[in-house]
Amino acid sequence: MNLSAEPLPVNGIRLGSGSAHIRYPDRPDLVLVEIAQGSACAAVFTRNAFCAAPVSVAKQHLAMAQPRYLVINTGFANAGTGIRGIEDAQASCATLAELAGCRAHEVLPFSTGVIGEPLPLPRLQAALPEVHAALDPHGWQAAATDIMTTDTRPKMASCQLAIDGHPVTLTGIAKGAGMIKPDMATMLAFIATDAGLDRELLQLCLNKAVSESFNAITVDGDTSTNDACVLLATGRSGVRIDAADEVYAPFQAALEALCRELALAIVRDGEGASKFITIQVEGGANVSECRQIAYTIAHSPLVKTAFFASDPNWGRILAAVGRAGVAGLQVDGVVIYLDDVCIVRRGAVAQEYTEAQGQRVMNQPEITVRVVLNRGDACARIWTTDLSYDYVRINAAYRT
Amino acid sequence: MNLSAEPLPVNGIRLGSGSAHIRYPDRPDLVLVEIAQGSACAAVFTRNAFCAAPVSVAKQHLAMAQPRYLVINTGFANAGTGIRGIEDAQASCATLAELAGCRAHEVLPFSTGVIGEPLPLPRLQAALPEVHAALDPHGWQAAATDIMTTDTRPKMASCQLAIDGHPVTLTGIAKGAGMIKPDMATMLAFIATDAGLDRELLQLCLNKAVSESFNAITVDGDTSTNDACVLLATGRSGVRIDAADEVYAPFQAALEALCRELALAIVRDGEGASKFITIQVEGGANVSECRQIAYTIAHSPLVKTAFFASDPNWGRILAAVGRAGVAGLQVDGVVIYLDDVCIVRRGAVAQEYTEAQGQRVMNQPEITVRVVLNRGDACARIWTTDLSYDYVRINAAYRT
Repeated sequence: MNLSAEPLPVNGIRLGSGSAHIRYPDRPDLVLVEIAQGSACAAVFTRNAFCAAPVSVAKQHLAMAQPRYLVINTGFANAGTGIRGIEDAQASCATLAELAGCRAHEVLPFSTGVIGEPLPLPRLQAALPEVHAALDPHGWQAAATDIMTTDTRPKMASCQLAIDGHPVTLTGIAKGAGMIKPDMATMLAFIATDAGLDRELLQLCLNKAVSESFNAITVDGDTSTNDACVLLATGRSGVRIDAADEVYAPFQAALEALCRELALAIVRDGEGASKFITIQVEGGANVSECRQIAYTIAHSPLVKTAFFASDPNWGRILAAVGRAGVAGLQVDGVVIYLDDVCIVRRGAVAQEYTEAQGQRVMNQPEITVRVVLNRGDACARIWTTDLSYDYVRINAAYRT
Repeated sequence: MNLSAEPLPVNGIRLGSGSAHIRYPDRPDLVLVEIAQGSACAAVFTRNAFCAAPVSVAKQHLAMAQPRYLVINTGFANAGTGIRGIEDAQASCATLAELAGCRAHEVLPFSTGVIGEPLPLPRLQAALPEVHAALDPHGWQAAATDIMTTDTRPKMASCQLAIDGHPVTLTGIAKGAGMIKPDMATMLAFIATDAGLDRELLQLCLNKAVSESFNAITVDGDTSTNDACVLLATGRSGVRIDAADEVYAPFQAALEALCRELALAIVRDGEGASKFITIQVEGGANVSECRQIAYTIAHSPLVKTAFFASDPNWGRILAAVGRAGVAGLQVDGVVIYLDDVCIVRRGAVAQEYTEAQGQRVMNQPEITVRVVLNRGDACARIWTTDLSYDYVRINAAYRT
């Protein structure tokens, strides 16, 4: 799979952006995605019980019709805003619908930013005509930049594959750097293809791709109120994909590679991150216990600060495995590696281990922690970051 | 209950300390507790699957006999040390037993410090005679100081109550500042009384006291490999306590107050802590879901950094409640307070809330977050700290 960081246009999709002065006077904060008639849309959303108003409204609208437009704002998340938040999200859809000549429930709203502040609705509505006028098939890169909050760089990926001799394009953008521990969804991600797929199949494709990408990353264990990932299929390439087709597998593989690329871009841009950590747990009795151990390591502040310090303090990793709450875990069977260096075997430091080997791995910017449980065939892999002064600085200062 | 920070001696208990040069050349790091013949001992230990060698050995010894001595070292935790760690812990017990004229399994070993380094056993053994010679009924304060690692101050508490006209004393010491999220145990804590109790009753008293004190605190969510809490009853006051006695309730209340005092001292001395946070969740369907929400708030890096910044960023608290994974949580019923200020009601910011009110509370060094779920009668209360630059500094530098 050759992924390109340059986003290729997708036939049937146009994007526009502009400034609604939502939180800052001088930066684009409003993005519009136009979806050609006849496209299919699949989506996954946050499982946070306090889900944001736009998430509630988007779910309702999606149940009523396939969307023609996505309206995305940054600055304020329109979460924790009660009835007024719902009304504001509905009003933005209605304004856009009037402008574009569609129905309000054919518009899905998305918001990201500070929780609890009401949207400045009049300013948002006033900016929609300009953004609508700016719609452009080449708008992906600007859109990726304009949906950022604490992100330091835009996240986008694209690929083309040949299906039955026809080129099919997949392009996606995402944003997210903190409050990252998606649960059944991610931060905001928007992906489109010009292949044609039924809505049900499209949702299956997305669910599968998300579980090993956006749902396998964590920066700080905090699941956002606003997470959403949307997959659009316009069908404009002329290529249709059914589950029984031979071409389904390569399409799904391309989608998964694209989702992973975007998800890993979020981790690499994790707030204050100085290290990129892969945690792989193998030989578990089931996937759930593998993920449980992986997330316990990934969320341990002691493990994360040791990575920040490039300190091969393997005892903290061992302690995290031990407290993960896996029933009946025999520590004698557990083997732990830092990259290719075995650090723990039979409940203790590996005999051949030397501090110099551990230090060599810890000095790297990218590190894999591999935990082998020796009690089954299941495995899981997640990605995370270290915990640095800058994480504290960014989050102690975010609202001020 | 009048608790005194000045530790009162407990008839039947003597303590001694000295330096075995375990990790640093110039500080006391070895503490010995002598327990009079005929005393009863109760203990709770870490649930971390990778429990330290001294924890394994102490559990074995406790199953064989009531202890006469506790040997406690700081510097190295003797965890992740495999067979050698077990042998080292047993050897320290044997050396002390020979010196003191008791059996090796009448000695319980405890260690705290860096995980994964072997104990310098010869140095530890060589220091035991000096420490044994130093045994003194007034040794509590020195012992509290000498078991510290990253602690910045000793933790001790004492109280006296009159039972049937006789004074009964309870005195305890504890250590701990990081890797704090005890699970059925705590960091190291040693408590003694001169009341007499059967071993079974003593264990019940301890279990009850621990669940609302040491097991209700968290600094960083990391459960140590070495947690242990020991309660000794010498009976030397001449007062015996049975479960059916009228005096059982006041004794239990005193024990709980003492455990809470020591546990809160650990939180107040949490690594890098600048704020002391009480999290109280009420109106839950059961205690388990209340604790689940309380710990999700307490472990959220975003909530913790907002406390550090004195930022009334209530959206982060709301998001943590929402992602805690409580099934069927109706956000409309949730009410959240910062001290006396209502911040969230019906899924949104409370109408009467002003930022000035939130700021006033957040500027305080001690803050209570109160979450009312309105779905039952259960409640839970835990204590935690903020997340500061200093937490990262301390844990990025701990081994160096």
